[in-house]
Order: sequence, then C-alpha cells, then structure tokens
Amino acid sequence: MNVGFIGLGSMGLPMARNLAKAGHSVTAWNRTRARAEELKGDGARIAERPQEACQGDAVFSMLADDSAVEELFLGPGNLVAALGARTVHISSSTISVELARRLVAAHQAAGRDFISAPVFGRPSAAEAAQLIIAVAGPPQAIARCQPLLDALGRKTVIVGQDPPAANVFKLAGNFLISSTLEALGEAFTLLRKSGVDPRIFYETMTASLFAAPVYKGYGSLILEGKFQPAGFKVLLGLKDVRLVLGAADAVSVPMPFANIVRDHLLTAVARGWQDDDWSSLARVVEENAGL
Amino acid sequence: MNVGFIGLGSMGLPMARNLAKAGHSVTAWNRTRARAEELKGDGARIAERPQEACQGDAVFSMLADDSAVEELFLGPGNLVAALGARTVHISSSTISVELARRLVAAHQAAGRDFISAPVFGRPSAAEAAQLIIAVAGPPQAIARCQPLLDALGRKTVIVGQDPPAANVFKLAGNFLISSTLEALGEAFTLLRKSGVDPRIFYETMTASLFAAPVYKGYGSLILEGKFQPAGFKVLLGLKDVRLVLGAADAVSVPMPFANIVRDHLLTAVARGWQDDDWSSLARVVEENAGL
Amino acid sequence: MNVGFIGLGSMGLPMARNLAKAGHSVTAWNRTRARAEELKGDGARIAERPQEACQGDAVFSMLADDSAVEELFLGPGNLVAALGARTVHISSSTISVELARRLVAAHQAAGRDFISAPVFGRPSAAEAAQLIIAVAGPPQAIARCQPLLDALGRKTVIVGQDPPAANVFKLAGNFLISSTLEALGEAFTLLRKSGVDPRIFYETMTASLFAAPVYKGYGSLILEGKFQPAGFKVLLGLKDVRLVLGAADAVSVPMPFANIVRDHLLTAVARGWQDDDWSSLARVVEENAGL
Amino acid sequence: MNVGFIGLGSMGLPMARNLAKAGHSVTAWNRTRARAEELKGDGARIAERPQEACQGDAVFSMLADDSAVEELFLGPGNLVAALGARTVHISSSTISVELARRLVAAHQAAGRDFISAPVFGRPSAAEAAQLIIAVAGPPQAIARCQPLLDALGRKTVIVGQDPPAANVFKLAGNFLISSTLEALGEAFTLLRKSGVDPRIFYETMTASLFAAPVYKGYGSLILEGKFQPAGFKVLLGLKDVRLVLGAADAVSVPMPFANIVRDHLLTAVARGWQDDDWSSLARVVEENAGL
Repeated sequence: MNVGFIGLGSMGLPMARNLAKAGHSVTAWNRTRARAEELKGDGARIAERPQEACQGDAVFSMLADDSAVEELFLGPGNLVAALGARTVHISSSTISVELARRLVAAHQAAGRDFISAPVFGRPSAAEAAQLIIAVAGPPQAIARCQPLLDALGRKTVIVGQDPPAANVFKLAGNFLISSTLEALGEAFTLLRKSGVDPRIFYETMTASLFAAPVYKGYGSLILEGKFQPAGFKVLLGLKDVRLVLGAADAVSVPMPFANIVRDHLLTAVARGWQDDDWSSLARVVEENAGL
Repeated sequence: MNVGFIGLGSMGLPMARNLAKAGHSVTAWNRTRARAEELKGDGARIAERPQEACQGDAVFSMLADDSAVEELFLGPGNLVAALGARTVHISSSTISVELARRLVAAHQAAGRDFISAPVFGRPSAAEAAQLIIAVAGPPQAIARCQPLLDALGRKTVIVGQDPPAANVFKLAGNFLISSTLEALGEAFTLLRKSGVDPRIFYETMTASLFAAPVYKGYGSLILEGKFQPAGFKVLLGLKDVRLVLGAADAVSVPMPFANIVRDHLLTAVARGWQDDDWSSLARVVEENAGL
Repeated sequence: MNVGFIGLGSMGLPMARNLAKAGHSVTAWNRTRARAEELKGDGARIAERPQEACQGDAVFSMLADDSAVEELFLGPGNLVAALGARTVHISSSTISVELARRLVAAHQAAGRDFISAPVFGRPSAAEAAQLIIAVAGPPQAIARCQPLLDALGRKTVIVGQDPPAANVFKLAGNFLISSTLEALGEAFTLLRKSGVDPRIFYETMTASLFAAPVYKGYGSLILEGKFQPAGFKVLLGLKDVRLVLGAADAVSVPMPFANIVRDHLLTAVARGWQDDDWSSLARVVEENAGL
Repeated sequence: MNVGFIGLGSMGLPMARNLAKAGHSVTAWNRTRARAEELKGDGARIAERPQEACQGDAVFSMLADDSAVEELFLGPGNLVAALGARTVHISSSTISVELARRLVAAHQAAGRDFISAPVFGRPSAAEAAQLIIAVAGPPQAIARCQPLLDALGRKTVIVGQDPPAANVFKLAGNFLISSTLEALGEAFTLLRKSGVDPRIFYETMTASLFAAPVYKGYGSLILEGKFQPAGFKVLLGLKDVRLVLGAADAVSVPMPFANIVRDHLLTAVARGWQDDDWSSLARVVEENAGL
C-alpha cells in the first residue's frame, strides 16, 4: 500500500520504519527534515511538504499534542483539504477527545475518511512492532487499513465506530498507568519509612497478584529511582492527565485519583523535573513523607 | 507437628483443614463451637478452651480484628501466658502495626516466640492451599514453622526479623488492591459516560499491560456489578484501609490514594452496602458521576 | 463621561443602570435586545450594534464566559478594532488568565487601552453599587476610569499594572468562597450525623471566629437547603473553578481544595442540579454521608 | 464556689487564674508542680494530689490529649471515683468523641455529674477571659456551673444535653479553622506564582467578604511566614484533625478537606516542623508549588 507518515518523533520514526519494512511504500514528512533522513535507508521517500504525504491509501499522523495536530490539519496547514479522495487519515497522536471530535467534523465536511488509532507502548515497543493499537472509525476504513496496523503492533482493538471513542480509550489506559505509579509510590514509601525493604514487596507482588508489565517495569524504575533517561517525560504525562481530566469534565465524571496524579506531576514540574520519567511522581510522594 | 488453631472464620477454617490434611495434629478452637465441629471429619481435635490450643509446637491465630486479638491474647484471655514454653505463636490476622508491636513486647516479656504471618488470598485460595504468606520474626522460629506454612500456601515471603514488618507488608498489599478498585472504577466510569464499552477496555488491558489476577478478578466483578456474595466485605476493607492510614500516620507518610479509598468505602457504608464486596466502592464512583 | 456597556446580564444590567444614575452618558448593547430595553427608563441609549458602544471614554464588557468575550472582541466581532482612539476597554467578565493575556496583546497591537476589572458581589450588590472591584492595568487608564468604577462599587482595589493580575485576583477570591462552601458542608454534615444541631454551630461561628459575610450568607443557604433561586449557579461555579485550576496549572501550583470543589460541582451537574445555587455542592457532601 | 482545676498548661493556667480572680476558691493540680506554683499569687491552693481538687462544687480538667485524660480519670488515676457526691466534672480538654462517650458512662456508673465544655481561643484569649465555651450535659449541672464558665469566657454556647455533642462541636470548629489555613495557603500561592502580591488580596478579603478573626489572624501569619513562636503547634493540630477524622469515620462521613489538611500536617511533621505553628501547613502548599 502507499502510505504517508507525518510526525517522526520517538514513536513515529520506528512506526514509519516498520511500515516500510513490511513492504509498504512510505512517504514521510517531519517538521525537522534531518530527522526524516534517518528513514532513507529503509526505502522511505522523504516529502518536502506534508501535503505530499496525504495522497496514498492512508496517511498516519503521530504528533506531539493538540496544537501540533490542530495547526497542521485544521489551521494554517489545512491538511484535511489536501487529503486524496481515497486517502484515510489515521490519527495516532494522543490528543483530546474534543479535538478528535472536531477532526471528525472537518473530515466529514471534506468527504474524507478519518479514524483514530492511538497506540499503547514505549518507543522500544514501537521498534519491535509490539504496540497495542486502539482503533475507532468507520468499519470499512478500518478494514482497508488493517494491513498497515498489522505492521505496527501485536494487537488491534476495535473500540467503536466513532473515532473519539479510541481517544477516550487511550486516555483511560494512560490514567490506569499513572494511578499505578502513584499507588506504588505510596506503598513503597509506607514500607520504607516503616523499615521494610520495598524490594521484597515489589518482587512478591509482581510475581503474584500484580504480575503485570506495568507493575514490573515501573515498579523497578521507582525502586531504583531511575528517572533518567525518560521513557515518557513528566511533561507528557502531565499533558495526558490534563486530557483525561478534560474528557472526564466533559461528561461530568469526577476522577479523584487523576487529580492527585496531576497535582504530583505539577509539583514535579515545579521542582524542575519536567524532563524526568513521569514515574518520578513517586519521588514527590517520597518527599512529602520527608524522604 | 502438633499445632493449635484459634479462629475458624472463612479463612481460618480452610487453613486449619489444610494443616490437618498435611498430616499435622491439629487442636482447633473457635468462639462459636458449631463452626469448629466442621473440622472433625478432617481429624482435628476440638478444644473446649483456647488455652488447650496453645501447647503444641505452634499455634496460629486468625481472628477478625485488633480487638478480638487483643482481648484473647493480651486482655482478659491472656493467652500469651498460656503458651507452652516451646510453642510459637503465629499471628495470621490482619491487625494494626501498633498491636503487632505490643504483641511482640508481651511475648518477649513472657519469654515466648512470636511471628507475624498474615496471608494474601481469598477463602478459595485458602482452601486450595494457594495463599501467599508474608512472615516476619526470629529466623529460627520461622524455620521451625516452615512445614506448617508450606501446608497453607504456595509461597512464603520472609519480610524481616521484626514481626510488625509483615503486618506493614500485608497492609501495603491490601492498599495496592484497594487502589486498583478505585482506579478501575474511575476508568470504567469515564468510558461508560463517554459512550465506550468498558468491557473492551477491560479485556484489552488485562490481556496486556495489566495482565494480573487483581485486575482480572476485580475488573470483572466491577463490570458486572456483582457485589454479592462478597468475597471481602466493605466493612473489612474499611477496617484495613483504616489500618493502612494508621500505619502511615505513625511514620508521617501522607497517602492520598488511601484517603480516597477510605472516603468511598465510608460512603458505601453510609448507603447501606457494608456487606457487599468491597469492589462496590466502584459503585460510589459511578454514582458520583450520575450513573 | 461617555461610556459604553456590552453585556446586560444579571450583573451587567444593574451596573449599567448605576452608571446612568451617576450621570454618565451610557450606550448599552446586549445580544438579546429586549433585555437592553429595560435600561431605557434610566436614560441610557440602546445600541443597535456593539461597535456603537465602543466610541466613548470607556466601554465595559460584562459577558458570560471566555467564548463570549473571545467571539466579540477577538474573533468574528473584532471589537478591539472598533474601539475609539481614546476609548478604554474595561473588561469586568470573569475570564481566564490566559484570555486576559491575549486581550492585552490584541489591544496593544491595536494601540488601545485595556484594563481588567472583575467584580466581587452578587446581583443585589451590583444593584446597590456595593461591588468590590479588582482592577489592573496602566495607571493612567485606571485613573481616567475611576469615576466610572466609583459609580459601581464601594471599593476599587488596584492589583497591579498587568491586567491579568486582576483576573487571578478574582479567581483566587472565588476559590476562597468555594472552599468555604465545601468546608461548611463538611462541618455541618459531621454535626448532623453526630446528632448535633448545626444551627447552633452556625450561629456561634458566624458571631465570632467566622463573623464574615460569606459564612453568614452561604452558611444560612446550606442550613436551609435553599438552593433555588440561585444567586450563582452550579454551572457558573464550575466554570470558575475550571478557570482557577487552569490558572494554577499554568504556574505549576497544585490546589487540592479546588480539585475537591470541582469534583463535587461535577457531581452536582451529573445529578441535574446545574441550575441550583453553587452552594448545593454541600448537598453532594451530605449525600456522600448518606443524608 | 469551690472549684478544682486539673491541668495547668498554656490554656489551663490562665483559666484557673481567672476563676480565682473572679472570687472562686480554687484548688489546682498539675503534674509538674512548679507550674502550679505560678498560681499562688492569685490565691489558689496548690493540691498535692489530683484527688484533692475533686471535692468542691466542680472540677475542671484541661489536659493535653486523650491518653492524659484517660489515665487520670479512667485508668490508674481513677479520679471519677474520687469525685465528691456533688462535684461536677467539667471536661474542657479537646478529646475524642469516643473518649467523651466513655467518660459519660463512667460518671453515670459512679453517680457523678459530667459535662463537656471545650473552649475556642488561643492562650491570649484565655488570659483575657474571652474564650468561647461549647457546653453539653445535664441542664441542671450546666446551670450550677454557669458562674464558673462566665469567669472564663465571653460566651457560653449550650450545644445539647449529651456531653459528646460539645466535643463534636469543638472538633467541627477546629476543622473549619484548619480548612481556612489550607485555603489561604492555596490562594496566596496561586497569586504569588502568578506575580500578584497576596498582601493586597489579604487586605481586600479581610476587609470585606472574609472580614473575620480567623482570616485576619492566620492570614497575616501565613503572609509573613511567621510560624514561631507557635500559638498552636503542628503536632496539636494534627492530633485534632485525627480526632475530626475519627469522629467522622464513626458516623460514616467522608471529609475530603480534612484529609488534605491531615496530609499536609503529616508532611510538616516529616520535614521537622512539628513545633511550628500549625499555619505552617501553608508552607507545605508553597513548597508543593516549588516556592
């Protein structure tokens, strides 16, 4: 298939590479062109302008935040108008439910297909094509793009026919991860200040009741206080929790755990840790206990 | 080995039975004698008075709460004084760190061995001898009791030499479970009110990032709203969260997630759900969102 | 002085009337013209288009929310361009700090004077010209408008030279009021469920330690459960708490009390109380305790 | 009247002195006798043993906490048994509702009159006989003691006939004060980090909407960061918030504001500020925002 890719950050680059490796013809664009050059060895074509990436069977967008997506697709860039008649826009960025809804309207008005397909996984999972992809949109559009999604992840979950559903799904997942960070931080801090080695607790729990990747991976980072290099930065985590709270506010859902996570991430920023891994919110918990 | 067992509730009864099945000679006592009779078929001896259960190699106590333990062992019952010279008291009740500390002092004063050995697992895990046992106490005492612990669970974790360490460990574990209930409740409610089926989310998460027994088991209960029969009642959950907060207060550790769990369990009690499963705290989250 | 007035809601109408009564020549505009007609008897001129209100010595804007202000002044309406060369724009709406900042930039670009002057007080205080007005902006512009401000309130507080400072000031004040509602709700509920008449508590406190208008006024509403007619609606309160949290987020300040207020107002909305007085957040507190 | 006084701390000493000054015959006892000697100049008699203070028309107790009261009156001291047949025990200590309830039972069993009469006010108010006294108990007993209460405060509020009612009342009042500390801390921090002088805010609010002693007094302490000397220490504040939460838990009332206050006081303790004024919880708020 002919596929465009817009946004070659730490997630986008390996995703685009995997599409090329799977035999698809990739046209990639990135604001900073130097970054795009890294794809050349994989046989991808580097676009001069983002419009060039919007003419194939589909185009992925994987951008940093709402404002980047809005600027390129709805605002000055107006890429929605540049989409080919049969080009499906696959939005994989973690964006607000509200922007997803506006994108739906803009694509409908332009007579173009739009699906939301945010992904779960760190850059290493993107490289290994082991992402989990939550997809929502018109069934035929999803079906057409399935070979592309298969090249990126180990599992595609169809969440519904309304694209924003996938964005809520993604935000709910990130919320669950962030709650785990806080809960582990509190449990470890209680143990440590009580003179109990949290490592034994970590090993016991992750070998039984909580034998899950999120507990194993993040629990280990928190125990070791290893917040650099950041797999996912405090600032990105904060952005996502804001999106969670915004989505919840829009449907009148109080989320007290999300409040606490947000507050601790704000404190992390206020202390200058914005570029540390977001698991450093556990460090805020520790400092609140005098550690 | 000759072993006593005091307290034959929904956890204590299957534990005592497994000791008998493993070939140990069990002397069991329960406040309500009828309950103890159920053990007769397993070859256990039924004690008339709790003192009779305190003369073997070890005696387990598995009681409802602090006041039951305090009354029997420190207060009017004064069972510490009734322990045989070589009888190790194995306290498996979920009690406060503070009471565990007083028990240590009382046993030391009486020249008796005391170990804390609270367990993780529901009654079904107790029946299947699949408990996880967190143990702390003098190493030789633990070593002597190891065959007994092996008859009860699939894993014994040695937390430390100071018995209260095992109690903190147990409370930290229960806290982690309770946080999961709240986090799942919030995530599901956000999805539901956004028009997204939380079942797909549940299945995706528990097959990947959160592929852990606590998420699978409780997530399913919450999705189905199946709060009866209760595996672990709201009132017991509330008791435990109080113990968590008490232990945290004693070492100056704020635990904001525990506060929220406590508040939601209080609301559950205020609404008359004290005998429902404690996962019904998710129902409080739902009602706060108007569901 | 010649003064325009844009936005004749429950606050704007009595404010415009007081300007006219004080002898100023008022040109008023309101989206719904019928509402503006009420001012005729006071000698005000009714404008057909909002631009007509922007030509005097100053023009007040008193609009419902960010989007109303943005639409009229920055967006399609572009009233900034319609301001007379010497017309000071006095923004009295409760808006976000972020929008205030954009208004500053737009007025500077157009070479026009802009001051923020949000007000404290309910409609009855507006009618009695007893508002407290927080003002920030260029000192000369404020000085020129002082006679107008004097016609509206009993006190003008100069907060600073940067207009958004007055908006933060206003939001901090509303936050303090909202915290009082929650605190009173919690205290009264504790008393009531303990069998103590909260009325005695209310009377004692408001005659001594808390002898302040906010405690007297709102305490009485909460005690009587008198949430209709609403002096300030749940939806408006929620809007303001969102602005508080947004302003706090922008400068990395966690505000846990504001979180709780927001959550309880969300629950109020979820229960259909959006048009009740925002003191009905105390009813959420009561219901959480089973009352 | 003949009146005993047990407990001559920073509150008890001036209270006992005021009783003597009002012409009552005072017999005072304090654990540390040197402290009691200070009363000699006021004509009070110093008791060797607390029992001697329990024989007049009434005896006040004003002790540090639950354990002091319990030890003297119910435990080893058993002063309830030492009360004269017509001696009313007036308990002015800030104690738990639960202990108040046990004191009621013990006095009833002994056929003695017991009233709860906790006070509002700092040591300076005690000296000036300007306390506010919340009283609950049998009406005749209160009536008999009224002349004594009049010597101590400017107002006696009769809360009910069940003594613990006065204890809940007192705790609800302290909760309201503690919430004010947190709310002011959050508002000031938002302003400060937004570049707005919180002093102007403080002066405006305490001259209008929040023109109340608690806001004036504590607001000033927080603004100046003047946490030494402590009028009321962090540790005492923490003790009281624990009592509030305990009383609320007993009647299934969630109090989220109290949770936050407790957590911030715990952090204050964890940082070594246990002997600072409890308004230093605002400093925790500031530090969480990076100030």
